[in-house]
Amino acid sequence: MKVDVAIIGAGPAGLLLGHLLRAEGIDCAVLERRTGAHVLSRIRAGVLEQVTAGLMERLGLDARMKAEGLPHEGFNLADGERLIRIDVKALTGKEVVVYGQTELTRDLMDAAANRGLDVIYEAADVALRDIESDAPYVTYSRDGGGQRIDARFIVGCDGFHGPSRQAVPASAGRTFEQVYPFGWLGILADVPPCNHELIYANHERGFALASMRSETRSRYYIDVPLTEQIEDWPDDRIWDELAVRLGPDAAAAMTRGPSIEKSIAPLRSFVFEPMRHGSLMLCGDAAHIVPPTGAKGLNLAASDVYYAAEALTGFFKANDNDAIAAYSARALARVWKSERFSWALTKLMHRFPGDGSFERRMQIAELDYIASSEAAQRSIAENYVGLPV
Amino acid sequence: MKVDVAIIGAGPAGLLLGHLLRAEGIDCAVLERRTGAHVLSRIRAGVLEQVTAGLMERLGLDARMKAEGLPHEGFNLADGERLIRIDVKALTGKEVVVYGQTELTRDLMDAAANRGLDVIYEAADVALRDIESDAPYVTYSRDGGGQRIDARFIVGCDGFHGPSRQAVPASAGRTFEQVYPFGWLGILADVPPCNHELIYANHERGFALASMRSETRSRYYIDVPLTEQIEDWPDDRIWDELAVRLGPDAAAAMTRGPSIEKSIAPLRSFVFEPMRHGSLMLCGDAAHIVPPTGAKGLNLAASDVYYAAEALTGFFKANDNDAIAAYSARALARVWKSERFSWALTKLMHRFPGDGSFERRMQIAELDYIASSEAAQRSIAENYVGLPV
Repeated sequence: MKVDVAIIGAGPAGLLLGHLLRAEGIDCAVLERRTGAHVLSRIRAGVLEQVTAGLMERLGLDARMKAEGLPHEGFNLADGERLIRIDVKALTGKEVVVYGQTELTRDLMDAAANRGLDVIYEAADVALRDIESDAPYVTYSRDGGGQRIDARFIVGCDGFHGPSRQAVPASAGRTFEQVYPFGWLGILADVPPCNHELIYANHERGFALASMRSETRSRYYIDVPLTEQIEDWPDDRIWDELAVRLGPDAAAAMTRGPSIEKSIAPLRSFVFEPMRHGSLMLCGDAAHIVPPTGAKGLNLAASDVYYAAEALTGFFKANDNDAIAAYSARALARVWKSERFSWALTKLMHRFPGDGSFERRMQIAELDYIASSEAAQRSIAENYVGLPV
Repeated sequence: MKVDVAIIGAGPAGLLLGHLLRAEGIDCAVLERRTGAHVLSRIRAGVLEQVTAGLMERLGLDARMKAEGLPHEGFNLADGERLIRIDVKALTGKEVVVYGQTELTRDLMDAAANRGLDVIYEAADVALRDIESDAPYVTYSRDGGGQRIDARFIVGCDGFHGPSRQAVPASAGRTFEQVYPFGWLGILADVPPCNHELIYANHERGFALASMRSETRSRYYIDVPLTEQIEDWPDDRIWDELAVRLGPDAAAAMTRGPSIEKSIAPLRSFVFEPMRHGSLMLCGDAAHIVPPTGAKGLNLAASDVYYAAEALTGFFKANDNDAIAAYSARALARVWKSERFSWALTKLMHRFPGDGSFERRMQIAELDYIASSEAAQRSIAENYVGLPV
């Protein structure tokens, strides 16, 4: 099999890129190690920036997102005593859409066949070959047989643990990393959200986030030491802790219910540079991870895809090599700013084990300042809604 | 001797408060451990916020400041490659005035006799007594004899090492502190500044600041490990290091000259709460220290003095006890915001020994973001020019 672009990974980044390339008549195939059902079972982010929503709109795949997604004009920072509302719409003229990553992935998946996008699921042992040449290829096995796809470019959308980034020689790249001393314990439940907008809380007992996927499905988080086991957190213990950390108003409005899913995820900041090596381009988690504070992960993957699609379209439609050469720097400029925002919001809203009373007062002072300053609120809002591509 | 208010310390805070109280007809005396000449010999800050300049104006002591001070409409952040100008005037409608703390102190000192402000220099062994009562008093010795001043209130403007804060029982207060792992090596020289506005630089060799006191007197700083000795820094070595850290443009415009003063000062964030205990009020460095990044120290003392003068005037003119009771909380609200700004700017512009490549990239990303965002620039500008009292 021979395509223009082989895409590794059929999560939202890979599918989004596949659709964008197909829309330009560029030949591509998407390889996925798991089944489609498994991909859809992964519970992830749910807040879409306009850049992300805009790509769905451009593809004409936004009907369900428009019908079922919840436009959010703001969000809240809480400190146990008060709620500081960041009026994103008033401050930036833009808004975000709450629409589960699972739903967005499903929309892209459902449209694949109609748009002539070839997605190969259950492709095992994927390996990237000759990525430094102009004729790279991917090998994998399926149904017990060895397979090969030749391409002009390979794009790695296969996440943090996928083979794409690993295919780049260590000497050609550089990693930047920060691991946080806590994880997020998340609970998903079919109950109405306690507040119509997100609440990020920095309570003396720790962090909490009240979020949602729809008007009937809530997603809540608390931070816990990384030594905690999910078995020690029956649903009631989680709801009790949320009620304390989110404060009395949110607690009064909170509906408890059985968890559909719960898990503890570590928090990490990670960037791999460069985001292109020869004929391999990396998008999304394959190149970088942000802590979930601020919901930048999926949106950053989408802006990578935006830049990658533009570069590949330039190459195949206009013989433009410069766009390919510029991809890494263009994507990284936005990546680092989002890394900074996610890191700064994580530091503002969590208690760190090593921090003393001075650092705690700095958090309070920053929240006081944010509450009193339109400039500070606008700065947060423009990052939250997504910096321009 | 009996006064309404005994003020400890005849630095800018003590003199400013004395003048403000005298202007309201409130009886006060200022006690200073050193000679007037010694007070004037201390080289300190030189950037006045509007709040500070406004107090001089209100007192009618602003003639020389207006004539000799340099209005600055902006300042610059540099990272070794570029200059990011923060256009304070355009972003906030306000400006700062470069006018040495020494000059401001001299103006206040020179006007004392005319305004009936009693300043007692060379007062040794100052001790605060009965501060929890309504009849506190201060004892000191002068010319070999024991002296006593009775007052209704004592205000401590005697700096970090003075006796006022120490007079508060440990159980009645709480301290917050952060010591930074470097000091600022400062050089003062009678040479024209290399740039008409301040430049804060974060170079790979470390921090540098190009500042000035007038059009013919420059003040420069570099950060150095706290283990450095000033004897190991002949002037030429300092100028060489400045030329590298400030970058080629500033280096080309820099005029070298013999140092009038040079020294290494540690950087510290410190806050003591509360800022009133019984009949004792604390102002300025007696209650809090900021690292010099952002030039908040003198200005924060001035806003404390503003609140203290208002509270004392309320008490003596309108029997308003509430204003006295509210002093600490009012002053601290602004103190903590300035502490935050000074801390954040210090963290942005210095290399910290423990920081790795990720933290360094966060600095670069923040500078990139600031360079690209008007909201971020406005937030910095409004802090730099001084938050409203």
